[in-house]
Amino acid sequence: MAWHNYLLDAWRRVSVRHGFEQVDGPIFETLDLYKAKSGEGIVSELFSFRRANGTTDFALRPEFTPTLARMVADKANSLPKPIKWFSTPNLCRAERPQRGRLREFWQWNIDMLGLDTPRADVECILVAVDLLQELGLGSDQVRVKISHRDVVRRILSKLGVADEKMLAAFDLLDRRDKMLPDQFKQQAKDLNLDEHRVERFEQMSRRKYPAGDVGHLERSAGIDGGLDALEGLDAELRAFGLEKWCEYDLGIVRGLAYYTGTVFELHEATGAERAMAGGGRYDNLIELFGGPATPAVGFGMGDVVLTNVLTDKNLIPAEVAPRPDVFVIALTDAGAARLPAVITALRTGGLHARSSYKTTRNAGKLLKEASQSRARCAVILDDKAEQGLCGIKELDSGEQNEVKISELKNALT
Amino acid sequence: MAWHNYLLDAWRRVSVRHGFEQVDGPIFETLDLYKAKSGEGIVSELFSFRRANGTTDFALRPEFTPTLARMVADKANSLPKPIKWFSTPNLCRAERPQRGRLREFWQWNIDMLGLDTPRADVECILVAVDLLQELGLGSDQVRVKISHRDVVRRILSKLGVADEKMLAAFDLLDRRDKMLPDQFKQQAKDLNLDEHRVERFEQMSRRKYPAGDVGHLERSAGIDGGLDALEGLDAELRAFGLEKWCEYDLGIVRGLAYYTGTVFELHEATGAERAMAGGGRYDNLIELFGGPATPAVGFGMGDVVLTNVLTDKNLIPAEVAPRPDVFVIALTDAGAARLPAVITALRTGGLHARSSYKTTRNAGKLLKEASQSRARCAVILDDKAEQGLCGIKELDSGEQNEVKISELKNALT
Repeated sequence: MAWHNYLLDAWRRVSVRHGFEQVDGPIFETLDLYKAKSGEGIVSELFSFRRANGTTDFALRPEFTPTLARMVADKANSLPKPIKWFSTPNLCRAERPQRGRLREFWQWNIDMLGLDTPRADVECILVAVDLLQELGLGSDQVRVKISHRDVVRRILSKLGVADEKMLAAFDLLDRRDKMLPDQFKQQAKDLNLDEHRVERFEQMSRRKYPAGDVGHLERSAGIDGGLDALEGLDAELRAFGLEKWCEYDLGIVRGLAYYTGTVFELHEATGAERAMAGGGRYDNLIELFGGPATPAVGFGMGDVVLTNVLTDKNLIPAEVAPRPDVFVIALTDAGAARLPAVITALRTGGLHARSSYKTTRNAGKLLKEASQSRARCAVILDDKAEQGLCGIKELDSGEQNEVKISELKNALT
Repeated sequence: MAWHNYLLDAWRRVSVRHGFEQVDGPIFETLDLYKAKSGEGIVSELFSFRRANGTTDFALRPEFTPTLARMVADKANSLPKPIKWFSTPNLCRAERPQRGRLREFWQWNIDMLGLDTPRADVECILVAVDLLQELGLGSDQVRVKISHRDVVRRILSKLGVADEKMLAAFDLLDRRDKMLPDQFKQQAKDLNLDEHRVERFEQMSRRKYPAGDVGHLERSAGIDGGLDALEGLDAELRAFGLEKWCEYDLGIVRGLAYYTGTVFELHEATGAERAMAGGGRYDNLIELFGGPATPAVGFGMGDVVLTNVLTDKNLIPAEVAPRPDVFVIALTDAGAARLPAVITALRTGGLHARSSYKTTRNAGKLLKEASQSRARCAVILDDKAEQGLCGIKELDSGEQNEVKISELKNALT
């Protein structure tokens, strides 16, 4: 929980300073809500249920976006634009727990709605990068891999993929890493791409192109024009100083029916884990949920892969658990009689104060327990407590002083 | 969410300074886990479900204690005692939403296990009182109503309630506020209490006795001895300085099969709302869940009644939502070209920086938007941005200065 809080506090702190406001939704929704966004395929991936004697199917939330879309669609006309929302819900997915994927996990969601310019896309990338930087990751350890639906569609079209095979081609791109090269080639052929074009298609989707220079992508990939959508995005990436974190990767596909423009994923630079975050533009979703046409872009970042990456890089701080300010010990019965009042004064005064629950009056044992608690100092109560005096011992330095109990709180702060 | 965070942060901050460590559990458990603590009666009060083709009944957590008991029972021998745990889970109850009760809510749980002395009971009361004090409530606005199972049992026994009718008598006490006086008298008679004794029983359960003086309770209630359990508790309440927050109320019953000693509830002093918190000692639960015999005491405090009480008393701070440090505006195209880099530097430097998404360059309109954001100051970018200069305007005082953009972050912190 110490690490969990550290991470959730960072998500919140960074979101707030980027001007996002926090929202939350219920832990379950109707199953139909999730099917509306993701189709029937989602059903096997979530915990759905029907109550005894009920007729409605519900599901524990496997993602937050449908809840967000429902809320925005409902209030679209009364919300000032752009809407900048974040959330940090727990989500449940009905899958076998494995590295990077747990059945219950937390996900940071960033969404910006009502702005159709690439500024919104790039502000989302900016807040994601700032979060990773806040947790200690540098631009050499992270890759923001960016693609764009329109650009990929245009390239595929030039390579001879018919419009009606476009979704299948995206699907093939998406599954490429799970296939043997021969399988990939065969399936590409089924899309009516000849062998030469299959090779270009595969090469293009495997290469990375530096952000900050769309011309480089154009020349390297041998693409002749049609990159306008990326050019606008690239200009904003440069304006916000993000180009060193980013690269273009036309193999990034993500949700097929869902994303409409920019798509991106944040990966550990060596590719050691699954994506730490993924998102993109989804300009059709609010309308699909019954609201007005509303441009939208956002991403989700889970706690599980992120924690794996940070653990591997020794970036989990050793002392995320709160350190007590003071550990109060009683060396005599007179001291013990005064201990509860001292504890009350310290704690209600805002200090993290612990004490021993042992009945021993042995100074060595009690001071050892104080040290083990990692407290900054020990407050020592003995017979002088009857005269209103106590000792303060700095546990790191061993320095000890006597103060009035009535002035203890001030002496410690 | 701003208030929600404020409250959850207070729960966490106060728990930590009282030496409690945070735990959490899964959002659902097997239904059997909840039945083991509360019996079949709980089933109608929670969201239970069985997955398609499944054979196990699950339930969204309606309370945290069974999860805690399961965890403690599992690890009891490896956990240092006393265990001091807190949690702030969301819980779900299948009931009609009404004032003070929602279907999904958050509950602060404080539990102290492994210590059988009244010190543990009183430390739990102390942390609850400190939380209420932290949120602005004083001892004149809150009553901690305390009773003790053993004491009530002893009194009832003296009044002639047979051992085998004891649970029924507790049940009657618990339901007394929902009954007409005649109903109460009739049901008391069914417990073999004659009319005189019924009256004493009722009077005793309706009166409050000041904490800090068990003798007063003894004399007023006409009880002859048998208050040892309350005397130990009373001594600790006095030692921790809590007697002015507390009173003895023998009508406080709570969970029948569950609590074993001290029981208590925290109420708004005029009785305007349901209990803000309730808890007590449950020394048998860990054993019931398969662990070793483990003394335990704890309470739960929900967010809903507490928020109602604080709202009624105007104790919800007006400005719980985070206030931006700075709002950046561009009055010219040259200023607008520099704006993204300024935003990046401020936000990644830890400042809460917002900007306008409007295309206007009108200073009046942009400054108005800056004020509406509640930002402390506006950063103004115009053609001087090309020379690396910008304006800082304090939005409260109207004072304006020119600084180098490269020194902006320092000028603002």
